[in-house]
Amino acid sequence: MENFIFQNPTKLIFGKGSIAKLNAEIPENAVIMMTYGGGSIKKNGVYQQVKEALKNRSLIEFGGIEANPHYETLMQAVTTAQKAGVTYLLAVGGGSVIDGTKFISCAVHYNGKNAWEILTDPAVSKKITPVKLATVLTLPATGSEMNNGAVITRAATNEKLAFHHPLIFPQFSILDPEVCYSLPQRQIANGIADTFAHVLEQYLTYPVNALVQDRFSEGILLTLTEIGVPLLNHHENYDLMSNFMFAATMGLNGIIAMGVPQDWATHMIGHELTAMHGLDHGVTLAIVFPALMEVMRDEKHEKLLQYGERVWGINSGNPELRIDKAIEHTRSFFESLGIKTHLRDYNIGQETINTIVERFTKRCWRLGERQSVSPEKVRDILNKAL
Amino acid sequence: MENFIFQNPTKLIFGKGSIAKLNAEIPENAVIMMTYGGGSIKKNGVYQQVKEALKNRSLIEFGGIEANPHYETLMQAVTTAQKAGVTYLLAVGGGSVIDGTKFISCAVHYNGKNAWEILTDPAVSKKITPVKLATVLTLPATGSEMNNGAVITRAATNEKLAFHHPLIFPQFSILDPEVCYSLPQRQIANGIADTFAHVLEQYLTYPVNALVQDRFSEGILLTLTEIGVPLLNHHENYDLMSNFMFAATMGLNGIIAMGVPQDWATHMIGHELTAMHGLDHGVTLAIVFPALMEVMRDEKHEKLLQYGERVWGINSGNPELRIDKAIEHTRSFFESLGIKTHLRDYNIGQETINTIVERFTKRCWRLGERQSVSPEKVRDILNKAL
Repeated sequence: MENFIFQNPTKLIFGKGSIAKLNAEIPENAVIMMTYGGGSIKKNGVYQQVKEALKNRSLIEFGGIEANPHYETLMQAVTTAQKAGVTYLLAVGGGSVIDGTKFISCAVHYNGKNAWEILTDPAVSKKITPVKLATVLTLPATGSEMNNGAVITRAATNEKLAFHHPLIFPQFSILDPEVCYSLPQRQIANGIADTFAHVLEQYLTYPVNALVQDRFSEGILLTLTEIGVPLLNHHENYDLMSNFMFAATMGLNGIIAMGVPQDWATHMIGHELTAMHGLDHGVTLAIVFPALMEVMRDEKHEKLLQYGERVWGINSGNPELRIDKAIEHTRSFFESLGIKTHLRDYNIGQETINTIVERFTKRCWRLGERQSVSPEKVRDILNKAL
Repeated sequence: MENFIFQNPTKLIFGKGSIAKLNAEIPENAVIMMTYGGGSIKKNGVYQQVKEALKNRSLIEFGGIEANPHYETLMQAVTTAQKAGVTYLLAVGGGSVIDGTKFISCAVHYNGKNAWEILTDPAVSKKITPVKLATVLTLPATGSEMNNGAVITRAATNEKLAFHHPLIFPQFSILDPEVCYSLPQRQIANGIADTFAHVLEQYLTYPVNALVQDRFSEGILLTLTEIGVPLLNHHENYDLMSNFMFAATMGLNGIIAMGVPQDWATHMIGHELTAMHGLDHGVTLAIVFPALMEVMRDEKHEKLLQYGERVWGINSGNPELRIDKAIEHTRSFFESLGIKTHLRDYNIGQETINTIVERFTKRCWRLGERQSVSPEKVRDILNKAL
C-alpha cells in the first residue's frame, strides 16, 4: 500500500425526507445563495421543498447553471453573490451545479483580474478562502457532493479543466433518493456509467497490495452491475435508487483512493470530447474506457485479470482471453445502459482525434497511473474507440 | 437502506515514516500533553520518534495508562493536564490509551463533582467542550483512532462503560505500520479478532438492502481471513501489517455502519467478562460471537447465509447446515489466531454467567439489532460458550 493522507469532513445526510433537515444545518446568520440548473427542480418539487425548509432565512437565488458549467455563467453568479454579500452557498442539483458552485465559492473572494486562473494557477487558488457551501443532490453521478474537486468549462475556448481546493468540501450534503425518481433515463444511465468509470480510474491500475481498497472498489462495481439495468426499468424503486445514490457518492469521496495509484486518463480524454462535441460526460467515459483497457492491457494486466474474476466471474482460461472477456463485459455493460460506446455512433472521426492529440501534445500531457499515456497512446485509444 | 447521518472529520496520515509529520499537524501555540501506556513505546522507538518530531514544542507527558483504561488513572491525568494548562492531547498507543485520552479530553473542562457522570449522563457530556486530541497509533484493533467513541473501566466497581461525544474524533491520526512490527503475538491476534468482531457487529444483523455496505464489510472480513495467520507468522511484513492496520481503522470509523442496523450485543457481554476476569477484549469477542451466532441464528438467518457464502465460500447445501458451517468457520478462524473460544478455557463458569445476567437484568438491558437479546438470551449465549 502506498503512503496516503485522507480527510473528508463532509456531513452526509441520507434518506427519505432529509431536505426538511436543511434549516438546522445552515448557520443562523448566513446570507444564503441557492444555486441551481435549468429548472428541473421546480418540476420535481425539490425547489419547493428547499424554499419551504428555508422560508425564514435570508436567501437569494441563482438559476440557470448549465451542464458542464460555464465559467461565463458562473462569473455572473459571482457578481450576484458579491453584490448581495452572500456568506453561504447552497447548490441544489447534480454534479454540474455543485461543481459550478465550488468555483463560485472560490471566485467570490478572488481579487485578481482573471478568475480563470483559479483553475490554472495553484498558487492563486491556495491564497483564496472560499465561501462555505453545502448541497442538496438531485442527480447521483459525479461524487461532487462529498469531495473537493470540480470541473469547469470555458465556452469561449472550448476548454474543460478540473481543479481542487482543500476548503471546498461541502459542509453537508443532503441525499434523498426519492428526489431522483423523476430523472430522465439518459441521466440515470450516464450517472451509472460515470460512477463505474470513477471506480475504475482508482482501481484498474497496478497492484499495490491494497487488499481492502480493492474489495471496496469491487463492491461498488458489483453493485452497479447488479442494479444498473433494473434501476433503468424501475426509477421509483427506493432500494435500487438509494443503492445507486450511495454507490455514486462512495465512488469518488476519497475512500477507495486511499493508498492506491490512480489513472484518470479516460476522464482527461473524455473531457475533450465533451468540450468539442457537447457529448454527455458519462457517454465519453463509456466510449473511452473499453478502448483504453485494450491499448493499456499489458500495463494493466494483473488488475484486468482481477477485475474480470471478481466483478465478472471470469476465472478460468488463457489470461489474454480472460482480459478480452473482461473488456467485452465492460462494453456490454455500458451498452446495456443504452449508451453507445463507439465514436462512430456520434459521427466523430479522425479530425477530432487529431485535434485532441495536438492539444495534449501542446500541453505536454502524459496521462495515466504511470504517466505512460503519451499523446500518441491517446491517438491509439481513440482509434480503438472509432 | 435506512436513513443515516455520517460525518468523520479525522485526518488519516498513513504510511512509513509518518511520525515525522507530527509537528506540522499540531497548532503552533498548543500546550501539548502526550499520553501513553506501560512504556512499550520507549522500547520500540516510537517515544523517541515523537519526542524528536516535537522537540521544539511545549510538551508534558502522562504515562502509565493501562489496558482497559481505569477512570482512577485517567483522573490523575486530568489533574496533571489542568495544572499545566494543557490545550492539546496527543495519545501515543493503542485503543486503551486513545480511549483514555478521549475521556481525559472531556474531563479537563468538566466542572462537576463526579466525572464518571460524563459516561453515564448524556446531558452532562453534551455540555462539555473537549480539549482537542490527536493520536499516533501503535496497535491496530479498536478503530478508536478514527471514531468518537471510548470505553472506560472503573476499577473500584468492576464496571466498563462506553461513551460517545461528537467532538472527540481525533484531529488527526498517524498510522505507521512499521511501528507495529514489535507487537507481541497476543496483541496482534487480539487486534485481528477485535476488528473481525467490529465488522460482524455492523454486518451480521438483518438485510436492509444496503448492497455497497455489505460488500465493504465482506471486503474487510475477507481481508482479515487472508492476512490473519500469515501476519502472525510475519510481523515485519509491511504488506501484511499495513493491510491489517488499514482494515482495523475501516472496521470502526462509521463507513460500514452507514444506513444499516447494528448489533453490539457481543461487545456488551464481552465487556463484562473483561471487567470481571481481566480477559483481553479481543478474547472475549472470540468467545461470545460464535455462541451468539448459534443462539440468534433464526433472527440472523439471511445474513448468516450471506456471510457463509461470501466470506467462507459456503454456497450449497441445506441452509441450516450452511449456517452451522459458517459458525464453525468463525470459531476456527479465532482459534487459528491462537485464541481459545470457550469460557472453560479460562476457568469461567456458571457463577460468572449468573452475575452477568443479574447485572443486565438490573440495568434493564435488551441488546442486539432488534433489542431482542434479553438477559435470559444472554444466559443462553454464555451457556453455549461454556
